[in-house]
Parts: sequence; structure tokens; C-alpha cells
Amino acid sequence: MSEFRFELIAQKGALRRGRYHTPHGSFETPCFAPVGTRAALKGLTPEQVRATGSELILANAYHLFLRPGQELIARRGGLHEFMGWDGPILTDSGGYQIFSLAHLSKVDDDGVTFQSIINGSTKRLTPETTLELQRDLGPDIAMVLDECPPGDADPKIVRRAEDRTRAWARRARDLHDSWGGAGRGQAVFGIVQGGTDPDLRAACADALVSMEFDGYAIGGLSVGETKDQMAVALDAAAHQLPADRPRYLMGVGTPDDFRIGARAGVDLFDCVTPTRHGRNNQAFTREGRMKLRNLKYAEDDRPLDLECTCYTCRTFSRAYLRHLAIAGEMLAGTLLSIHNIHYFQDIMTELREEASS
Amino acid sequence: MSEFRFELIAQKGALRRGRYHTPHGSFETPCFAPVGTRAALKGLTPEQVRATGSELILANAYHLFLRPGQELIARRGGLHEFMGWDGPILTDSGGYQIFSLAHLSKVDDDGVTFQSIINGSTKRLTPETTLELQRDLGPDIAMVLDECPPGDADPKIVRRAEDRTRAWARRARDLHDSWGGAGRGQAVFGIVQGGTDPDLRAACADALVSMEFDGYAIGGLSVGETKDQMAVALDAAAHQLPADRPRYLMGVGTPDDFRIGARAGVDLFDCVTPTRHGRNNQAFTREGRMKLRNLKYAEDDRPLDLECTCYTCRTFSRAYLRHLAIAGEMLAGTLLSIHNIHYFQDIMTELREEASS
Repeated sequence: MSEFRFELIAQKGALRRGRYHTPHGSFETPCFAPVGTRAALKGLTPEQVRATGSELILANAYHLFLRPGQELIARRGGLHEFMGWDGPILTDSGGYQIFSLAHLSKVDDDGVTFQSIINGSTKRLTPETTLELQRDLGPDIAMVLDECPPGDADPKIVRRAEDRTRAWARRARDLHDSWGGAGRGQAVFGIVQGGTDPDLRAACADALVSMEFDGYAIGGLSVGETKDQMAVALDAAAHQLPADRPRYLMGVGTPDDFRIGARAGVDLFDCVTPTRHGRNNQAFTREGRMKLRNLKYAEDDRPLDLECTCYTCRTFSRAYLRHLAIAGEMLAGTLLSIHNIHYFQDIMTELREEASS
Repeated sequence: MSEFRFELIAQKGALRRGRYHTPHGSFETPCFAPVGTRAALKGLTPEQVRATGSELILANAYHLFLRPGQELIARRGGLHEFMGWDGPILTDSGGYQIFSLAHLSKVDDDGVTFQSIINGSTKRLTPETTLELQRDLGPDIAMVLDECPPGDADPKIVRRAEDRTRAWARRARDLHDSWGGAGRGQAVFGIVQGGTDPDLRAACADALVSMEFDGYAIGGLSVGETKDQMAVALDAAAHQLPADRPRYLMGVGTPDDFRIGARAGVDLFDCVTPTRHGRNNQAFTREGRMKLRNLKYAEDDRPLDLECTCYTCRTFSRAYLRHLAIAGEMLAGTLLSIHNIHYFQDIMTELREEASS
């Protein structure tokens, strides 16, 4: 009996409000998952992440595979225990990372061989070992290995990648079933590829749906596509993916994208933008993006965002945050990341309320 | 009527337990003040600093003079408001910083001229402008400007520096009195210099005591002196400084020094060690210093310190902290700093209990 369940709470058009149940508690959808690449949200404690309103976090199986290794984390009792996060965790399989460093990787029908970014050693992942890796890491949700061609790739390459993604998904699904499926305490999501070709996207979605994954991701975006190209992928998702499973738009990214995605029926988002921009002294606010090093904030006593209730906005002025940014204090990155994640969670709250209205 | 008062709670030999009252609340002594050099504890929020048991924090007038400047902070309502710390704050005058960068500074009887470490511009501080600077920054406790010769300086240089320190203290005291003294909401502490010459230390202490400062610091240490040399300074303090005012051993530094200092009658300590060592992946523990990058911690599931109750020790294993250190995650510095400060506060608690026993 699976502990995983997508509960639909409200719907308005394609926009859905729901709740996804996992063995480590549930998260409300639309959901934004901040990214703790190497089993740590950069500069934030789990306590601080929780206080932003985040319920689900993401870690990256690829990075943890390289260091400290899946065995070490498995011996610690898995990711939750290791990193001190007792809520739901999703791990990305690493496909995107491997292929975004394409000059270091070599793909064949069986899997992908690549060089470690840490020490240059040769590593290999297949659809099966990727799933074994995530079984050892122990997140609530694992992702299958997919092939992500560049956004501007030749249609032939996109078609071949989609073929492979589909074949790899089948192998991952079979292995996962042989372990007892989600009943073993870990859901597995398939990833729809197919570039910007609507027919290819639809065919890939159909094929994956027939494999009955616990959820479905829309992959291959945020690699240089336009808004129109994103619309193609979203359209396929909305019409092809089953209503009773969560839909996850991987690695996308900005407040506008969240609204477009959620209104097209996406339930789940993740992105490094709030923490990466935070460390670069940028804040997302209701007034737009704010570069805190700008002189105009030097004597600005207002909080970053006038409506925000995060710790940063409750406690500090733009003037103080600018001082930290100019002085190169690492606290700037922490405080701006806290705000940015909280702000993204506020957008999710608004989208959930819109679905219920 | 002054809002500042040193309340003696217990004494055992020279070891004192007390409480110092300020307009922003009181702190128990012996007290360890973590250092927020540029109006920020590196990588820690005020909330996290508070949770380590810290009651008093230190900021550095010299650094804030250079950036963002005293006027900007004064217009924000002062340091407490600016940095979101509502407890007591002490600012160091900057003497130590100016003189530890001696190749960039030129001292005369009236003050000191130095180059900004930020942009090389020429700056000047005198006993009077140092106090005006701190009046603008608005800490609860301000320090006079002193001259700190190197630990190995020629006796003549030490004597001249002591002369100057004494003359500067007089000028600072007079200016402070002309403002209404501590009744204006800011205490001012004198600084005993005199190197390792017991007579010079005693004479400096006597002279300062006759000026009736709100508290007395023992300066010029932690610049290369031996334990014997520290004993000279501490001995002068214990015998010359009045019992009804707090005694502050500046910039010192390790658990052993705290015990030696407190048992010689010191009430107040500050040092960057817990945060600096934390950022360098080192922990202070009851088992001694721990270098977290060491391979032997890779699979160590114990907390840093088996008896510690800090957030880091309650939540994370040595294995996880080592992973963060090896991966270069900024969270390592934050979590180790939290532990180190908490550990130093535990030592203060033990010393207070010893005084009461």
C-alpha cells in the first residue's frame, strides 16, 4: 500500500490546489521546493528553511553521488537524518547536471559516462544505478534518469534523446516495480522530454503515462527556450498527464514562470534562483528585482518588500542589507535567500488561493 | 542618573559573578561577547546569536567609521536599530586595529593618521573624534582611544605609548563628562596599557582609576605575549582596579585564557576566535579543538561535543559537518560558529557557577 497520494483540493481552469502525501508528511501544491544541491541549502539552516514556509526541499543525486557518496549517506540513515530535514525531500537524478556539462559526458543507449567535476575521475550512471543511488540516499521522491539535449539542438538529436528518455524510463520503472514500487517508501517520477516539438512532447507523455509513474516531470526547459517554447511543453503536460498525479516543472525559475506554469496545471516547481540571486545580493520583491549594492538603497529604511513577513523583512532595512552586501558579509546571502524563498512561497500561497477562489 | 551599574552577585577568591546593567538590558559576568566587526556576526543572524546564550555583542568603531560611516548609522537610529540587536552592544574604539596595521598609521600626541583599508584614503582619529564616532554609533559601552605598541616593542616605546594612552584617556573622559557622562546613555571604559612592565601597568591603572571610568579594560594583550606576560597585566588589574566596576580583558581568546582571566578577577571577554575558527572549519569542544576536514570524522555520527546543547550539536553529526566543510558549503561556517560561541558561553556559565559555589 503506497504512502503517496495526490489529494486535489480545488481547481480553477487548469490551476490546481492540492496536497501531496509522503512518508515524511505532506506538502501543499502548487509547491516551490528550494534546492539544497549538496544536502545543504546554501547558508541556511533547516530551521531557517522551514521558517520560509517551505515544505519540500530538493537535493541533487548527481552531486551527492560524487561526494560524499551514496554509501556514506545510507550508513547515516539517509538524507533526512544526514541533513537534519524531517520533511519531504525530492532528489533530482542528475540528468540535467550531466548533460549541462556535455563536454565531459558521453551518452550511449545504456547510460552515460562522465568525468567527476571534483577530481576528474570517470563515473557512470545508468537508469538502474541512478535509481539505486536514490534508493540509498532515501528521499521521498526519486527521479528517473533522462537525457536533456540543449534547447537549440537539432530535431534529430532531440528525437533520439526522447527515444532514450522513454526507454530509460521503462527500465527505471521495471526496476522500481521489482522493489515493490512506492510501497517501499519512495515514489518515482517520470520525466517528459521532447524539446519544442508538440507531437514529440505528447508522444513522450503518453508513453510515460502508460508506465504509471507516481508523478510526472516536464524536463528540458530552462535551457534557453523562449516563453512560446515553454508553452508547448506546458500544453502537452496539461492535456496528456493524468489529473490524479502531481506535475512537476523542473528547474523553472521566476515568479512569472510560476504563474504561467501553475495556471497551465503544474503542481510543483524547484529552482536555485532564490538562493543564487540571494548570494549575488539580489532580491525578488513585489516591486521587481532589487540589486542591493545599488547606492539608492544606502539610506533606505524600508524592508526589502513592504508586504513581506519574512524574518529579513521583519528585522532589517534595505540600508543594512546594502551595508552587508557592500562589505561582502556572508550574512547578506543568508538574509536575502531567506527573503527570496519566502517571497516565492508567498506566490505559491496566492496561486493556491486563486485555485480556491 | 546613570543607567549603568555593576552588581556583584558572588565572589570566590578573585573570581567574581556579577551583572552589568545597561539601557538595553543587563548581561551576566563573567561574560563572553562575540564580535560583529562590521555590525554583523559573520554568517549568523541576531536570532542565532541570541540562541547561543550571548547577551552582549561587540562591534568595531574603526571598521564602521570607514564604512558605512557614523552619520549613516546615526541616521538609522544607531547600531541597535541598524543591525537588529536589541541587547547591550560595546564598540571597540579602533586603537588595536589602527596599530596592528602600523605600517599604514602615524601616531602623534594629538591622535593617529592612517590609511583606509578600503580605498587607501587618509583618515584621522583623535581621543575626541573616537568618542564622537561612538556617540553617533550609539553602543551602550564606548571605549577610549589607546595606543597599542607591539608585544615585543622596546621599553621606551611602551612607556611613551602608556603616557599617550593616559593623556588620551583624560581627554576622552573630559569630553564624555562635558556631555553628561554615562547619564547620556553611554558608558565609557578606560584601557590600561603598559606592556609587560608591572610598574607601568600599575601606574596606568592608578591614573585611569582616578579618572573614574565606568569600567576598565586591560589592553595590549593577544599581540604575541606569553602566559607570564599576561599574568603581569592581570595582576595589575586585580590589585589596582576598583571592585565596583567591570574589568574587561580585550581580545582574549581561548577557553584556557578565560579561566585564567576570570580567576584573576576579569568580568568581560571578547574575541573573534569562535567565528573565525568556525569559518575555518574548526570546533572548540570538551575534547579539545577539532578540525572538521579530518577524514576521521567522515563517518562519525556523534555531535561535535557530547555534552553541548547548541542547535548544531542537537541537529547535526560530525559526519554531516565534515561533508559541508569538504564541500565548501558556507553553512559549515555558520553551524560551527554557532557551536563555538555556545561552547564559550558554557565556559562563562561554569565560571559563574564556580564563583557562586
